[in-house]
Amino acid sequence: MSPTDRHDVTRRDFLEAGIASAATVAIAGAGSLLAQSDQDTVLAQIARQHDTTVKRLREWIALPSIAAENLGYPQGAEYMATLARDAGFDRADVVPTSGKPGVFATLDAGAPTTLAIYFMYDVKQFDPAEWTSPPLEGRLVDRPGLGRVMIGRGATNTKGPQMALLAALHAFKGAGRKPPVNLVLVCEGEEEIASPSFREIVFRPEIEAALRKAVGIIIPSGSQSPDGTVRINLGAKGVVELELVSSGKAWGRGPTADIHSSYKAQIDSPVWHLVKALNTLVGEDGQTPAVEGFFDKVAPLSPRLREIFEAAVPHVDEAATKKAFGVSRWHGDESWHDSLLRLVTQPTINIEGLVAGYTGPGGKTILPHRAVAKIDMRLVPDMTAKDTLQLLRNHLAKHGFGDIEVNMSGGYDPTETSPDSQLVKAMTAAYGKSGVTPLLWPRLAGSWPGVTFTGPPLRLPALQYGMGHGGGAHAPDEYFVIESASPKMAGLDGAVKSFVDLFYALV
Amino acid sequence: MSPTDRHDVTRRDFLEAGIASAATVAIAGAGSLLAQSDQDTVLAQIARQHDTTVKRLREWIALPSIAAENLGYPQGAEYMATLARDAGFDRADVVPTSGKPGVFATLDAGAPTTLAIYFMYDVKQFDPAEWTSPPLEGRLVDRPGLGRVMIGRGATNTKGPQMALLAALHAFKGAGRKPPVNLVLVCEGEEEIASPSFREIVFRPEIEAALRKAVGIIIPSGSQSPDGTVRINLGAKGVVELELVSSGKAWGRGPTADIHSSYKAQIDSPVWHLVKALNTLVGEDGQTPAVEGFFDKVAPLSPRLREIFEAAVPHVDEAATKKAFGVSRWHGDESWHDSLLRLVTQPTINIEGLVAGYTGPGGKTILPHRAVAKIDMRLVPDMTAKDTLQLLRNHLAKHGFGDIEVNMSGGYDPTETSPDSQLVKAMTAAYGKSGVTPLLWPRLAGSWPGVTFTGPPLRLPALQYGMGHGGGAHAPDEYFVIESASPKMAGLDGAVKSFVDLFYALV
Repeated sequence: MSPTDRHDVTRRDFLEAGIASAATVAIAGAGSLLAQSDQDTVLAQIARQHDTTVKRLREWIALPSIAAENLGYPQGAEYMATLARDAGFDRADVVPTSGKPGVFATLDAGAPTTLAIYFMYDVKQFDPAEWTSPPLEGRLVDRPGLGRVMIGRGATNTKGPQMALLAALHAFKGAGRKPPVNLVLVCEGEEEIASPSFREIVFRPEIEAALRKAVGIIIPSGSQSPDGTVRINLGAKGVVELELVSSGKAWGRGPTADIHSSYKAQIDSPVWHLVKALNTLVGEDGQTPAVEGFFDKVAPLSPRLREIFEAAVPHVDEAATKKAFGVSRWHGDESWHDSLLRLVTQPTINIEGLVAGYTGPGGKTILPHRAVAKIDMRLVPDMTAKDTLQLLRNHLAKHGFGDIEVNMSGGYDPTETSPDSQLVKAMTAAYGKSGVTPLLWPRLAGSWPGVTFTGPPLRLPALQYGMGHGGGAHAPDEYFVIESASPKMAGLDGAVKSFVDLFYALV
Repeated sequence: MSPTDRHDVTRRDFLEAGIASAATVAIAGAGSLLAQSDQDTVLAQIARQHDTTVKRLREWIALPSIAAENLGYPQGAEYMATLARDAGFDRADVVPTSGKPGVFATLDAGAPTTLAIYFMYDVKQFDPAEWTSPPLEGRLVDRPGLGRVMIGRGATNTKGPQMALLAALHAFKGAGRKPPVNLVLVCEGEEEIASPSFREIVFRPEIEAALRKAVGIIIPSGSQSPDGTVRINLGAKGVVELELVSSGKAWGRGPTADIHSSYKAQIDSPVWHLVKALNTLVGEDGQTPAVEGFFDKVAPLSPRLREIFEAAVPHVDEAATKKAFGVSRWHGDESWHDSLLRLVTQPTINIEGLVAGYTGPGGKTILPHRAVAKIDMRLVPDMTAKDTLQLLRNHLAKHGFGDIEVNMSGGYDPTETSPDSQLVKAMTAAYGKSGVTPLLWPRLAGSWPGVTFTGPPLRLPALQYGMGHGGGAHAPDEYFVIESASPKMAGLDGAVKSFVDLFYALV
C-alpha cells in the first residue's frame, strides 16, 4: 500500500473548484435533477448511520489479518465477505488461492455502467509496545490540527477508506435506492506481502469476465492532505520484495552454525560475504542501483506525463514534506523539483532490514553462520518484476555471489492509467462535488498491484480514490480522521460521500 | 572467554608423559615425600565431597549474572564472595566499580609462595528455546563419547572450572590442611562484555599490592580435549567490541524515523550508508582488515614462539576441527599449517551481528532510519585496544563515514606470558601428575583480559589452567564433564585434583 501523499494546492485552486462545481449543477437537465434528488436522499443517510459506520470500522480493526505472520486466516476473508454482503452486494464469495484466500463480490444494480473495486483485507505487522493506544482497539482520540481520529492498525491502510465505500453502499440501502452503477469487488489478503496470489483471484474465468465489464477499478484511499488537497496518482511503481540470504551451508565456506568469533582469522564469514554482495548493488552514493541492466528498460516520462508533473510540482510543499519525514535534505542535495522527478521516474533498491548473528543488547562474540538482507526494489515502466529479479540473480552470480539465496516473496510490475480515461474524468468531477480540484500526479513512488488490471489482458483504468485523510501506514499509531477539525478536509462522513458522488459521476 | 581448544597429541606423547611423571616421584627427597603425604590426604577428600561439589555448581548455575542484560547484580558478586569464604578464603569482599561489582579475596597460608587467581562470575546471554534442557537447571545428562555432563549456562565458561578450584580448597579444608601456597582471588562480573571496569578492581591499591606478591595468575579452565590432551596458551589476542551506528539523525541525511520505502528515490538510507562503511573495513576477500594502519603494529611471532608453534601444529587435528565447526575449507583455501598460523598471528574484524529496520518474518516496506553493526576486532601484539579504536575512527572519518557512531563497549590489549616463567613450569609439572604432557601453544585466538596482569605495571605470568573438559561456551547446551567416559579425560574430580597438584607444584 502506498503511503499518504502530501501536497498543496493554493487557496485559489480551492475557490475555482467550488465555482466549477456550482457550474456543473447550473447546466444540469431534468434527468440530472432526478438523479440529484436520489443522490440527496442517499447522502442524507450518511450522518444518520455515522455511529454504526464507526462501530463497524472498530470491529474490523479488531480482527487483523497479517500474511507475514499467518495471522487471521481464513477469518479475515470470511469477515470481508460478510461485510460486503451486509453492505448490499448480491453475493460475496471467499476465493481460495495457493496462498491466502481472496473475496469476490458483485452488486447488479441493472445499470449500464459497471465500476470495479479493489480491496485488501490484510494489514501490516505491528508492535503494540510502539503504540500510544492498543493497535487493535480503534480508539478515538483528539489529534491537534486534525480532529478526532481513530487509531488502529489498518485505520488508513486500508480499512478506513474501504469502510467509507461500504458505508456509501449502506447509505443507498438505508435510502431504499439502488446505486447508479453495478459493482464488482475483488479483494485479497496478501497485499502487504506484495500480492503473491492475487492473479489467481483476478483471472478466475468468472471474475475476469465480471471485471471486463467495468469502466475501471478504484482502490479506496484517504487521499486528502491535512490542507484538504487531493492528488490523483495516474500510476504507481512496481515492486519486488525479496530476501538475500548468505549462509555457510550454501556458500560452502564459513561455518554451518554460529561459532566463536575468534576463528574469524581462519574461517570465512557469511556476514561479510553478504556485506560485500550488498555493496555491489548500489553505487558509491548508496543510492543509484548498480545491478547490471537495471536501467535498460527504464522509460522516460511521456511528454503528457511530464507536462502533468511540471504543472503539479509548484503545488507540492517541500517544507511540509521535509517535516513529515524528519529529512533535512534530499538525495544528492538536489532541488525539490529534481528530487520529485527522481521520486517519480527512478527505480530504487532499498534495504528494509538486516538481520545477522546477535541482535540483542550489547555484543556477543560469535561468527554468525547466516545473514539476511530484506530488500525491496521499486520499478518504473517498462521494467518488469520478473526481468528485474533475473537481473539481480545474474548480477550476483557474475560478481561471485551466486551462492546467496534470492528469495522473492512477492512483487508486480508498474501500473499506468491514462489521464484521459473516463475514470479520471469521473473522479475529477466527483471530487469537485466536495469542492476540491484534484492534482494530477504522474506516478506514485509506492506500489499497488494495479498492473493486474491495467496490464494485459484487462487493460482497465485503475486508480486510488477517496476523500478523507489518514496517516501512519506501516508505522505505529496509524490513524484515520473520523471528525475533521478543518472545513477543507473531509472526515469519515465526507469520505463516504465521495464514493456516493463517484458512483453518480460515472453515470 | 575463549572457546574450548581442540587439539591432539599422539598416544606416544601420552605414554612419555606418564614416564616423566613417574621419574619426578622417583627423584623426590624426604621433604617432598612429606608434602606428598599431605597431598594424598587432601586428594582423598575429593571423591568424598563429589556430590557436594556438584550441588554447589548446580546452585551457582541457577544464579546467572549477565552484564549485557543487567541481570543478577549485585547478587552474583555477593554469591561469589560467599562461595570464596566457604571454600576457605580468609576474607572475600565485594568491590564496587563504575560498572558491575567485582570480588577480592585472600587466603594467607603462611606460605612463601603466592598464586593469584582470576574468576568471572558473569555468563553469556542465552535463549532457553535453543536448549535441550533448561539453561539454569544444571541437568546431568549422558553424552555419548564424553560421559555424564552438566548442561547449563556457565557450565564450562566458567563456573565449572572455577568450582573445581574452589572444591580443591574445600578438599584442603576437609583434610584439615592448609594449602601450600597463599592465594589472591580477583573476580569480575563483566567479562562477557569485555571487562570495561576490571582495571578499577585490579588497581585498587590494596588489591594491586596483594597481586604483586604472586608468582603468576591463573584463570581456571577445562583445558582438556575429549582425547585428553591439554594445551597451554602462552598468550591471547586482545579484543575491541563495539557497535557501529548509522542514523539519519547523526548523518544529517535520510529520515529520523522509519518511513515508507517508496521514498528511497529521494531520501538517503542510513542502512546503505552503513553497508558502504562496512565495505571499506575489510578487503574484497571479506577477511583482511582494510582499516588504515591496522597492521602497522602487528609483530611477527618471536623465533621462540614460532618454534613452539611449529612443534605444536602436527598435534592439532584438522579433520576434528573442521567437523566441530561445520567448516569444509579454510579462508583462502590455505593449508592447515598456514591457516593455524593466520589464526595465531593475524588480527581480525568480525561482524557479530547486524540489525536494521524490519527483522521479523517476511518483509516490511520501510526505509529504516537507523542501522547497527556489532563488531569485534581481535588484536595481536603490539596492537592496543585504544590505538585500534582510534584507527577505526580515523578510517571512517577519512572515508566519509565520520557521522557513524563508534560505541566501544569494552576491550583490552593482547596478553603474553613467557614460556620460561615459573608458572608454565609448575603447570607442566602439575599436568604431569595427571599423566598429561601439555602442548605449548603460542597464542589463543580468543581473548581474556590477561593483559591487566601481564602488562605494566604488574607484569605477572597469566595463564589458563585446569584438567577436565567442557564445550558450548557462548552457545546452547553449554556443558562441563562431571564423570568422564574416558580414562584419558578428567571429569570434575580430576579437574579438582589438577588444582591441588598445581598448588603443590608451585612450592
